[in-house]
Amino acid sequence: MPSQQHDTQRGKQKALAAAVLAAGKGTRMLSEAIPKVLQELCGWPLLKYAIRCARAVNPDRLLVVVGFGREKVQAAFPDPSIEWVVQEEQLGTGHAAGCAAEALGDFPGDLLVLNGDLPHLRAKTVQGLVNTHRELKAEVTVLTCCKSDPTGFGRIIKDSSGRLINIIEEKDAPEDVKKIKEVNAGAYVFKVAVLKEAVQAIKPDNVQGEYYITDAVVVAAARGYKVATFLLEDEREIEQVSDRADLARSARRIYNEIAQEHMRRGVTIVSPDTTFIGQDVRIGPDTVIYPFCVIAPGVRIGKGCKVGPFTHLRSGTVLADGAEVGNFTEVKATFMGEKSKAKHLSYLGDGHIGPNVNIGAGTIFANYDGKKKERTFIEEGAFIGCGTILIAPVSVGKGAVTGAGAVVTKNHDVPPGQTVVGVPARPIKKEKNRDEESQKEKKKGKGKEVR
Amino acid sequence: MPSQQHDTQRGKQKALAAAVLAAGKGTRMLSEAIPKVLQELCGWPLLKYAIRCARAVNPDRLLVVVGFGREKVQAAFPDPSIEWVVQEEQLGTGHAAGCAAEALGDFPGDLLVLNGDLPHLRAKTVQGLVNTHRELKAEVTVLTCCKSDPTGFGRIIKDSSGRLINIIEEKDAPEDVKKIKEVNAGAYVFKVAVLKEAVQAIKPDNVQGEYYITDAVVVAAARGYKVATFLLEDEREIEQVSDRADLARSARRIYNEIAQEHMRRGVTIVSPDTTFIGQDVRIGPDTVIYPFCVIAPGVRIGKGCKVGPFTHLRSGTVLADGAEVGNFTEVKATFMGEKSKAKHLSYLGDGHIGPNVNIGAGTIFANYDGKKKERTFIEEGAFIGCGTILIAPVSVGKGAVTGAGAVVTKNHDVPPGQTVVGVPARPIKKEKNRDEESQKEKKKGKGKEVR
Amino acid sequence: MPSQQHDTQRGKQKALAAAVLAAGKGTRMLSEAIPKVLQELCGWPLLKYAIRCARAVNPDRLLVVVGFGREKVQAAFPDPSIEWVVQEEQLGTGHAAGCAAEALGDFPGDLLVLNGDLPHLRAKTVQGLVNTHRELKAEVTVLTCCKSDPTGFGRIIKDSSGRLINIIEEKDAPEDVKKIKEVNAGAYVFKVAVLKEAVQAIKPDNVQGEYYITDAVVVAAARGYKVATFLLEDEREIEQVSDRADLARSARRIYNEIAQEHMRRGVTIVSPDTTFIGQDVRIGPDTVIYPFCVIAPGVRIGKGCKVGPFTHLRSGTVLADGAEVGNFTEVKATFMGEKSKAKHLSYLGDGHIGPNVNIGAGTIFANYDGKKKERTFIEEGAFIGCGTILIAPVSVGKGAVTGAGAVVTKNHDVPPGQTVVGVPARPIKKEKNRDEESQKEKKKGKGKEVR
Repeated sequence: MPSQQHDTQRGKQKALAAAVLAAGKGTRMLSEAIPKVLQELCGWPLLKYAIRCARAVNPDRLLVVVGFGREKVQAAFPDPSIEWVVQEEQLGTGHAAGCAAEALGDFPGDLLVLNGDLPHLRAKTVQGLVNTHRELKAEVTVLTCCKSDPTGFGRIIKDSSGRLINIIEEKDAPEDVKKIKEVNAGAYVFKVAVLKEAVQAIKPDNVQGEYYITDAVVVAAARGYKVATFLLEDEREIEQVSDRADLARSARRIYNEIAQEHMRRGVTIVSPDTTFIGQDVRIGPDTVIYPFCVIAPGVRIGKGCKVGPFTHLRSGTVLADGAEVGNFTEVKATFMGEKSKAKHLSYLGDGHIGPNVNIGAGTIFANYDGKKKERTFIEEGAFIGCGTILIAPVSVGKGAVTGAGAVVTKNHDVPPGQTVVGVPARPIKKEKNRDEESQKEKKKGKGKEVR
Repeated sequence: MPSQQHDTQRGKQKALAAAVLAAGKGTRMLSEAIPKVLQELCGWPLLKYAIRCARAVNPDRLLVVVGFGREKVQAAFPDPSIEWVVQEEQLGTGHAAGCAAEALGDFPGDLLVLNGDLPHLRAKTVQGLVNTHRELKAEVTVLTCCKSDPTGFGRIIKDSSGRLINIIEEKDAPEDVKKIKEVNAGAYVFKVAVLKEAVQAIKPDNVQGEYYITDAVVVAAARGYKVATFLLEDEREIEQVSDRADLARSARRIYNEIAQEHMRRGVTIVSPDTTFIGQDVRIGPDTVIYPFCVIAPGVRIGKGCKVGPFTHLRSGTVLADGAEVGNFTEVKATFMGEKSKAKHLSYLGDGHIGPNVNIGAGTIFANYDGKKKERTFIEEGAFIGCGTILIAPVSVGKGAVTGAGAVVTKNHDVPPGQTVVGVPARPIKKEKNRDEESQKEKKKGKGKEVR
Repeated sequence: MPSQQHDTQRGKQKALAAAVLAAGKGTRMLSEAIPKVLQELCGWPLLKYAIRCARAVNPDRLLVVVGFGREKVQAAFPDPSIEWVVQEEQLGTGHAAGCAAEALGDFPGDLLVLNGDLPHLRAKTVQGLVNTHRELKAEVTVLTCCKSDPTGFGRIIKDSSGRLINIIEEKDAPEDVKKIKEVNAGAYVFKVAVLKEAVQAIKPDNVQGEYYITDAVVVAAARGYKVATFLLEDEREIEQVSDRADLARSARRIYNEIAQEHMRRGVTIVSPDTTFIGQDVRIGPDTVIYPFCVIAPGVRIGKGCKVGPFTHLRSGTVLADGAEVGNFTEVKATFMGEKSKAKHLSYLGDGHIGPNVNIGAGTIFANYDGKKKERTFIEEGAFIGCGTILIAPVSVGKGAVTGAGAVVTKNHDVPPGQTVVGVPARPIKKEKNRDEESQKEKKKGKGKEVR
């Protein structure tokens, strides 16, 4: 019963570690430079999905086994809570799990092992796997699934008492075994000591010449350890991502699921098929997302906003309630205040925009000077004229105005209420009669306002 | 026979009113601020579809029953021919129809009652309903439909002579009734006097505690009034829109239907799945719509035009024959003359462009000064240089030219044939040798052309 | 056997000509101005698909039979290797083939005849047709297909020995014939002399009043010539393009096939459904194509590039390895060097960009002065500031910099290492204190830098 799963000291659960297997090259991706687990899926590297699942069970230690391109993988996850385990040679999943077990030393508990290429696996499924392992006091528990078409998967063989006794790979399976629908889903919980013992016993005597983690399961069963299974419900959770077509298919599925979820929460998405909303985006009710939008993971959008069509909200964008962005506008790492609008052909990068600001068509925050990125601040109620370029770092004060085509140079902040015009932008002067102006031009020089 | 349906005086048909039920909040939309019937579907508020259907039968009076958020609903339809009927409390469809009947006073004819959330219902179906009512001299006629899957709909119960005797809601239906495929589609014609009598008799004795219009139908039948049915053919006409996912599904369907219709008329749409053409758009033959276009309701496009990719034609846009707009260009309330082109990164708002005008990349009509919108006029054969900003109100004469990067300030019209350059734009002067220029610079001041 | 198919002299195969039938108007396209074979499909005119297929068998002569709108068709294929055969009146496919046979004079070999509206027909299928014709020493060979639904196609009637004896059109077919699944696919090889004889014998005694090429096949069979058939495998190869809806459907299919092929080669395409990659595009591995991209036929993209979202790469674009283009950027006939970037709101036309160049947001190559297109050159490591307009012809030297909002005028090349700013752009001067500057302004005139 649940209470028995807890350590007596501190009421904490029995120790649990998690290991994500992320060492493979992923040959079928045909990549020259990118390890499979760094392939991008809906704005996240593939590995991030597995890590999220692993974290969901709140492990005491989180290991990621890396090998091919490990410097790149480690660099992509600058997270001190991850313990990187290096598998120097990629000798198979059994070997990789063994490396993780070694790294755990005399860790007293269990190890959850997850493949790095199952982005659709749900946290609640993994939690169910762990819970079952503990409720049954098993020493190994295998996640299984009944596939309508099991082709390609390892089949789960059980004895008459329902105990797992073997896992037979597709290519080794005789016809009667091929009819078995229950397959190995690619996630396991092992008692660490049992895993260590079992991986010592497995051999790479198969076509691939690899050490299989499934063989470790079978060894454990043969030696009399308690091997359980946990059956997941939705077979679509274990669609693997092996090549670029899989990536595209998975992306479409995830983007659809995300869009459906936002719609369920009161967001209008005019065209889910042409909308790409990443993970962990929050959108308030009554916001309308028009066609052709890409919204990066983690973006925050308030209620009653209008986004799109043709809009890219990149990482770090925050739109307050009632903000509107659309028509060939890109926003990056910028806060837009309530009811502020940027509706046409603008690039807003590294900015902070107050409420009720109007950003005219063709506005650009020139945030990059070739060396570093700088920030732009626009205060409440300012009016940025069409085609204005704001060279960061710079600020535009409350209620200030920039004329169409103004180039506001760096550090030349526009004070509250002031209007600036021209290239470079200067405070407005009273407009003269154009002919008069023309006559005086040689003496006067530049200085005409543009609005 | 048909002639009997006409009033003797003026050869006019018997009086007909129409009422659209639009009072509900639409809880499943999860909207904080927007009544269901104002949810946008393909550029129109949902209610507009029902009003269009109602108008199609040419009613003598058109009533819309409003309740939740009625100020917003009324504001969205500033149409003096609509009679707004306020249902103070939303007590159900029967109550709403009763409110409409009350508002009709002693109106001598029939009342067509339509739900406000059936955007796929066709005008010819509604006309068929009215025609049947009159041909059969019925006192109530119910629109029905045979659904392949009737789940969720009220079932139509008829006696052995085929006369409607009951409508049983899903939740009240025993198993044998659930097997009935003919369902209530949500549109009715009542003789007004019969409706008034029937709604007096109905009670809110159901789970929702609401007065149902179906109960009024059943009461009329029970009292011996002639109750007929009209069976619509295409069951997809009665797909209801209840939540945001329904909105998205309906939108995709309507956009597809519209695209198919334009293709049938000789328009090439390269990718109907990524093209969003609104209602009542006209497009001439041989026009090509490239991928990623949004075209608002009512836009007019001539023949042999090219639109897209990446183009937003907003309300009020008119493209004459052979005009071309594309590549991150947005047009709003602007007329573009024959063979005029705006092919790159432009915003054209509130303009009138003559024929054979070339709009360079990055052109902006600065139509808004923060207070009001002003207009821009460009005459035949003008050449607008790249990156030109035209600050409205302003005009560019026949054959005139603006240099790249010119900012044409407001009211500084460019005369026919003239070339203007600079910020702010001034008539061009002969270009000097740059070095010579450089030496004279301090004395001369600004005034160089950019072309 | 194969060796017998070769002429003895020069080891060359027996003479082979190919004729593409492209004379029809294509009434169902409802076009006022465009012959059917010029309708655009995935960036190519429809006819180009048939010509590609015909060329694949390496014919000694390539004929295209034109009629309706032939000037336009010929102008669209300015290829001296095509022999244009004019069919003055469009009297049917038999007549068109006869025109081709006439034009061949005493050509001693075979003629491959292809319809111009079968864009999905594969070269290997056509090669198989020709090979079969020659291996069987046939005098006529008909491409056939077993359709799961043969409705609308001419049925192939064979005698008990499997010899083709008749082709019966749908409308003339009795019920038992309609059940035949093997249909005429619309491609043929004729011995030229046999074709000439047969077309003399056919009559337009059918509903359309046209001469059918199928009648020529049947006449040849009746006269005892050896008539063979070659069965293609994939029935989807003979989906005809007759109207605009067919065009859209074919386009979606071709774009999908192309995307799948690139993914198989190691390219990530985030969203194949919203990506439009034309024919003959080459893309290196590890390049990522984000949503909303249109890539024209023939574009070349290196490895490790990032393209999109919202990007249009037009004809003549070449991206070297590691180049990045995205976010509302259009590139035309421009080479981008290694690791160069244009990531926001830019139009790059007729340019040559060296490696490691940064193109700022809102950059425009003003390549068109209303009369002709000119080129822009940017050398290695240059930094183009936001909103820069480069008026071609112009060049920016190695490591040079343009300030935000600079308008670099034509022929005013920026030397290597120099920084230019302003409108028009001039070499930068040291920035003064703004207040000091302001006081001196009347005397000094323009000349302030913008960065």
